[in-house]
Amino acid sequence: MSISKPYLLFLGDVKDELAAKTAHGVLDWRPEWCLGQITLPGCKAHTTLSEMSLTDATEAGAKTMVIGCVNAGGVLPDHWIETIVDALNHGLDIAAGLHIELGSIPAIAEAAAKNNRKLHDLRFTDLTFPTGKGDKRSGKRLLTVGTDCSVGKKYSALALQKGLADRNISSDFCATGQTGILIAERGVAIDSVVSDFISGAAEHISPATKDDHWDVIEGQGALHHPSFASVSLGLLHGSQPDAFVVCHEPTRSTMRGVSAPIPSIQDVIDLTIQLGRLTNPDIRCVGLAINTMMLSENHAKNLIEELGEAHKLPATDPVRFGTDPIIDHICAEFKLV
Amino acid sequence: MSISKPYLLFLGDVKDELAAKTAHGVLDWRPEWCLGQITLPGCKAHTTLSEMSLTDATEAGAKTMVIGCVNAGGVLPDHWIETIVDALNHGLDIAAGLHIELGSIPAIAEAAAKNNRKLHDLRFTDLTFPTGKGDKRSGKRLLTVGTDCSVGKKYSALALQKGLADRNISSDFCATGQTGILIAERGVAIDSVVSDFISGAAEHISPATKDDHWDVIEGQGALHHPSFASVSLGLLHGSQPDAFVVCHEPTRSTMRGVSAPIPSIQDVIDLTIQLGRLTNPDIRCVGLAINTMMLSENHAKNLIEELGEAHKLPATDPVRFGTDPIIDHICAEFKLV
Repeated sequence: MSISKPYLLFLGDVKDELAAKTAHGVLDWRPEWCLGQITLPGCKAHTTLSEMSLTDATEAGAKTMVIGCVNAGGVLPDHWIETIVDALNHGLDIAAGLHIELGSIPAIAEAAAKNNRKLHDLRFTDLTFPTGKGDKRSGKRLLTVGTDCSVGKKYSALALQKGLADRNISSDFCATGQTGILIAERGVAIDSVVSDFISGAAEHISPATKDDHWDVIEGQGALHHPSFASVSLGLLHGSQPDAFVVCHEPTRSTMRGVSAPIPSIQDVIDLTIQLGRLTNPDIRCVGLAINTMMLSENHAKNLIEELGEAHKLPATDPVRFGTDPIIDHICAEFKLV
Repeated sequence: MSISKPYLLFLGDVKDELAAKTAHGVLDWRPEWCLGQITLPGCKAHTTLSEMSLTDATEAGAKTMVIGCVNAGGVLPDHWIETIVDALNHGLDIAAGLHIELGSIPAIAEAAAKNNRKLHDLRFTDLTFPTGKGDKRSGKRLLTVGTDCSVGKKYSALALQKGLADRNISSDFCATGQTGILIAERGVAIDSVVSDFISGAAEHISPATKDDHWDVIEGQGALHHPSFASVSLGLLHGSQPDAFVVCHEPTRSTMRGVSAPIPSIQDVIDLTIQLGRLTNPDIRCVGLAINTMMLSENHAKNLIEELGEAHKLPATDPVRFGTDPIIDHICAEFKLV
């Protein structure tokens, strides 16, 4: 996948920071690719980049406008179309992770053709998948799972893969969502796969590999989420993880977008092991990744210590405090280095 | 949905009777719509209808050739295309439940256009769905679930809905697969929905209704099947069933198409209740539907009695021995009629 850089990050007028997680993800992990942001009136999200007009951005050398925000269901609000068309008229390509193809919107298709610009639809793949087989594959796999959607599964996977690589353990980050694909420049958006093929696509994403190689697979959804548990289960079965890390954001009261309560960390550990055993009887939890962004440093450290002791597992905030406790534990459990 | 009748049922050259379950389903439940069958050399499936050439069939009045067989993954073998084109040239429409649209195959698209014939793609819908919400809806729902794929979930749902209707209990059969859609002439093929929207589509299929109305929802896949558990889970969460019936075929050794073992009926009851509680805390099992097609009548009756006693639930083969035991139990449990 080749998307022209640098990027202008479009945040629309989303109602919270989480809705702009694509923009934040690309900026946090690939800051050298990002030039500025552009928002619409009423936008409640913002990055650390300067706000730029389309004219400023193109003059500064921007090549692609990345739609850095997404709502549940991945639809494109009508009032965003004008800015996208305008960006194409300014000579920018567009990259988006929507559930509809950009080119299916006539005004966008016309503007792209007129300006000879590229439309990158990250949620669509040219690949076709067989149905999942469930047979054990060679190599090792680690999957991040969550007590909810949008709790840090992608960041934890990226950080854990970096942690393994830092110790010279052969590993890859396997992207399963549009932001991960933008960061890794490859992968499959698992929530866009036709449901008959979810586990087959997950098997494709983390194929048989060398015995000492680790695929670190970005989790999606949450097994306890009434909207997306099926995506999470297909990914779990297809990934057949040897190890998983539970990601948790401690300040939520209900699951994102619905009225269902947040499950406990122990509930998620138990259910992941119970269901994951279908394709990997040796599946085990190797750590807790606590997203402490909303907490003070002291509060964060105390909570991490408490949760780690309660579950007898290494716990950390991978972004704030690094992944060493979990990587140490993986090395011990699997006799690495 | 309007498909011209009567039908000629195409069985291809499938390797077993189960692979022709669409043909069998339509013939068993809508015999008045079916005129004959057509097979390719080597076909191991057959119906009770006469084998007909395309010429014989059209002379006898056939209007649509229904692709009555399907393989895992829903692909169209290249060597079936010639017969489909030939059928179009004989003036027949085509109905199929494949994962690719008939019109995406150039030879078929050309022949359809040339002969002004219709192509019905049962697995594709014009509807779009929101993501699932998981909120409790009014009305009652019954879902059939299985110890495996292709064990009788559709037949059981059809028979149970008929059993409810026979007692003047307001009810609908809700089709979730291509054969069910052919029988009901409406529904959504849940395994063809983009995975982000499985539970949302299931919510759409069985919407809020009157308190005393029962939607009987055709199950898909199996929660213990490594290929399709995600489809089953999304359907379970979206259906939020008040009641479910476990369908079981007692002669299998491994799950269809994979090497995973068949779970026990108790495993399926327990897991369905455990996971179904997320969207309906009152979910309960109301019976066992044992597919005894492969057994003698005596053997079948003994097994049904044994399984019913072991699980303390009404058990029957809905097709062979009727649904009365299960309907009686539902009426008692939910205080109907």
